[in-house]
Amino acid sequence: MAQAPNCFKPLAIACPASTAPQNVICVTAGISALPVSIMPVQPMPESSLLSPLVDIVGPRNALTDPADMAPYLREWRDLYQGETPLVLRPGTREEVSAILAHADRTGLKIVPQGGNTGLVGGQIPNDSAREIVLSLGRLNRIREVDAQGYTMTVEAGCTLQAIHDAADEVERLFPLTLGSQGSCQIGGNIATNAGGTAVLAYGNTRDLVLGLEVVLPDGRVVEGLRGLRKDNTGYDLKQLFIGSEGTLGVITAAVLKLYPRPRAQDVAFVGLASPGDALELFTRARARAGAMLTGFELMPRVGLEFSVRHLTGARDPLQAPSPWYVLMELSSGTEGEDGENPTRTLMETILGEAYEAGLVEDAALAESVAQAAAFWHLRHGMSEVQREEGGSIKHDVSVPVASVPAFLSEAIAAVEKMVPDCRPVPFGHMGDGNIHFNVSQPVGADKAAFLARWDEMNELVHGIVLKFGGSISAEHGIGRLKRDLLGEVKSPVEMDLMRRIKAAFDPNNTLNPGRVL
Amino acid sequence: MAQAPNCFKPLAIACPASTAPQNVICVTAGISALPVSIMPVQPMPESSLLSPLVDIVGPRNALTDPADMAPYLREWRDLYQGETPLVLRPGTREEVSAILAHADRTGLKIVPQGGNTGLVGGQIPNDSAREIVLSLGRLNRIREVDAQGYTMTVEAGCTLQAIHDAADEVERLFPLTLGSQGSCQIGGNIATNAGGTAVLAYGNTRDLVLGLEVVLPDGRVVEGLRGLRKDNTGYDLKQLFIGSEGTLGVITAAVLKLYPRPRAQDVAFVGLASPGDALELFTRARARAGAMLTGFELMPRVGLEFSVRHLTGARDPLQAPSPWYVLMELSSGTEGEDGENPTRTLMETILGEAYEAGLVEDAALAESVAQAAAFWHLRHGMSEVQREEGGSIKHDVSVPVASVPAFLSEAIAAVEKMVPDCRPVPFGHMGDGNIHFNVSQPVGADKAAFLARWDEMNELVHGIVLKFGGSISAEHGIGRLKRDLLGEVKSPVEMDLMRRIKAAFDPNNTLNPGRVL
Repeated sequence: MAQAPNCFKPLAIACPASTAPQNVICVTAGISALPVSIMPVQPMPESSLLSPLVDIVGPRNALTDPADMAPYLREWRDLYQGETPLVLRPGTREEVSAILAHADRTGLKIVPQGGNTGLVGGQIPNDSAREIVLSLGRLNRIREVDAQGYTMTVEAGCTLQAIHDAADEVERLFPLTLGSQGSCQIGGNIATNAGGTAVLAYGNTRDLVLGLEVVLPDGRVVEGLRGLRKDNTGYDLKQLFIGSEGTLGVITAAVLKLYPRPRAQDVAFVGLASPGDALELFTRARARAGAMLTGFELMPRVGLEFSVRHLTGARDPLQAPSPWYVLMELSSGTEGEDGENPTRTLMETILGEAYEAGLVEDAALAESVAQAAAFWHLRHGMSEVQREEGGSIKHDVSVPVASVPAFLSEAIAAVEKMVPDCRPVPFGHMGDGNIHFNVSQPVGADKAAFLARWDEMNELVHGIVLKFGGSISAEHGIGRLKRDLLGEVKSPVEMDLMRRIKAAFDPNNTLNPGRVL
Repeated sequence: MAQAPNCFKPLAIACPASTAPQNVICVTAGISALPVSIMPVQPMPESSLLSPLVDIVGPRNALTDPADMAPYLREWRDLYQGETPLVLRPGTREEVSAILAHADRTGLKIVPQGGNTGLVGGQIPNDSAREIVLSLGRLNRIREVDAQGYTMTVEAGCTLQAIHDAADEVERLFPLTLGSQGSCQIGGNIATNAGGTAVLAYGNTRDLVLGLEVVLPDGRVVEGLRGLRKDNTGYDLKQLFIGSEGTLGVITAAVLKLYPRPRAQDVAFVGLASPGDALELFTRARARAGAMLTGFELMPRVGLEFSVRHLTGARDPLQAPSPWYVLMELSSGTEGEDGENPTRTLMETILGEAYEAGLVEDAALAESVAQAAAFWHLRHGMSEVQREEGGSIKHDVSVPVASVPAFLSEAIAAVEKMVPDCRPVPFGHMGDGNIHFNVSQPVGADKAAFLARWDEMNELVHGIVLKFGGSISAEHGIGRLKRDLLGEVKSPVEMDLMRRIKAAFDPNNTLNPGRVL
């Protein structure tokens, strides 16, 4: 299991769900809203209810030993921990169907779980010890790879990495790219509509799914494993399951879109004066490169300093410091003629024009695959290095792309006013308008005191996000963490429609109760 | 109004809805299934029910004169004709809301209509004279164009052409491309999830929508005009309205995705021996060009012959005949250095390699914009020219891309066996697996007798489509035309979920009753 970031540890310790009194405000976003901490512990379901479930998967795949169950009951940051009488590991869709049918009939509650990498608590049972964990990990076959049709049919428990590898074997690309791809599973990626660093060119997970096989809460199966690019026959049911975080059905398999594997790639590390200049560079790069622009990530100087300080082997690619940096990636399906690299030529054109226009202070182009990886390492390490600098208050937000500079300007000023000398480290997917607006504590300040202002700072930053028409959960979803915030950002009409959908699909509230809605 | 294709005229005449006895089987797909022809004519709604609607939009925008209403009551092929007591032309979202609220309270039925270019009868009232037409054409403002954020906010009644023009003004592309773009409206495009020739590179209309403003059947408004690239806050409600053909809500405005406007483009007209070779060329071209491959359209020799025979100024671009042709388009965001065209170089590489591999018999590259337009004209004229060759039985179908050759081989053999000497003209979006499988009558045969076998041939071809996991409505939707076929291609579980959604969103069945479900 991955090491939990330090910043979360005191939070979990400060507010263990089972002992917190009702008026405790836990020092992280939305924790105060969790029903878990105020829910009276109920007795376990009777064994007569549970034993049919054990019969369905067999005793070997019905875990009850606390040590066996432990990995399914807490996530890597220790922010969520739960209890369950049973972890079920079905091996077939038919077993999933039988489990749900039984639960729906008898009032048992089911929490589906993939690779357990979710960040909003959706996959962890609450501490009532009445929710049963349904782990999809054994449904891990790649059923079919269709290189000519650019599709792949996979079961929910396939890791994202296994899917990448299978696509690579036939010279194809499955573009979804996440830090957790070695352990996260495609079923969870689809259920949460995962984002990542390739959204700019290829879209969110929703855009990468052609068909779904889903088991409904009552055990019926939606056989939707269609690999069609065009199909206008009635309502597109799969869209409802994508991003519903396991509250409407359990995804057991999917048909995914594949893409051509890039044959040439170039990465530049660019120093700029401001996010406004970064936006202008993005606009020009996109107009020039079109779909060949496959990465555009923003980082502040302080973030680069953190990386250089704490990442082994990291160094500043540029001679002189700039206030802001962009990592820009171009990809092409063509290798180019006579050794000429088409992405290199295009990169030089874009950066040359931007330099002439005064938008770029300095830029370094990766001269090798290793150097490109080193540039990406500075970006991918940015989450990790922040915990070496003390407490960090996080926001997973998005605004319209053109509003990123104005949002940053206002949000940075606001948090600096709220906590003088704090160090904002806003970074991320500028091309999607998705900024991880993280704020590190002032140097030498008291970490716990800083983190105690988590909710207050969230409220401040989310208020600015909403003013720009933004989202308070760009990538991670709602789960349990932001469940009580949903009603603040959606209208009563939207909330009503969501509840009607939940009632239509899961009238007995069998699946993931208390998540999302 | 566009000239109706000849082939449809006798159909409408042969079976006027108001006089057909119950046992008449109309000679076109699914017409026999329409409830229209057997529905007893009911009295008009009382004027006391209608007059509040007139008050909402004002008498000038509440049409009751038969001549004024005529254009809203039939579509261009005369396949569907209806009656209504009232055509309403609201000018604001608030008026739409007030109209629906009144209708929902009083039991009136509402048929939303955009540019009236739909091909499945969804936008035409039935002949009960009890359905009120809600025309969205006056909601035609482009509210905002955000070039840096690559978004545009438009009202439902904007024509697709107006949106293209507004994007072009800021050097952006809105890629949805349809034959009817001068008159179709974006609200209808979204409600039907329109396809077209740019799906290969940019996706269906669904993929081009970031946010929607929708009036629900009870008059409440879903304010979802968000322009975010990433937003994981609850169920993605807009996905349900997209493609629901006006049965769940009335779209009044949308935020659309824009793309960089291509700076270089190349078009080739390629002769090949078989659809199998075309598939192999597609596979190679896509692997080479990636997202730069923006068009890949298949045509048979007989289709080209029709075009050369009937399209003014059309000529065969190649010296010798080939059994099949592909129109291939490459686009690039870059103009290229020193006058070198990057798409030309890539096109030559792809075709050169394919020629070496024996996949390509001959190919012509467009040497000018005019020549490229002439190649596209051969493709776009293909629907039109078929009516010059007598009766034509149509199928709007898709199969997985890799199955296109096998599907074509089997379907062609089947229809040729059913009607000896018939002339299959399967053409269209090979890169999406979407083939317009049209079949022209034998030379000199009786047209009416050939068309009388429409349903029989549909059943034959659809059966083969389904065997390949395909769709019987790839682009055009269900509407009234294929309503009774839906239950044959969707499972009882899928039908049940669709009905639950309809009941949750439109419990009084106020919107577009008898369409889709």
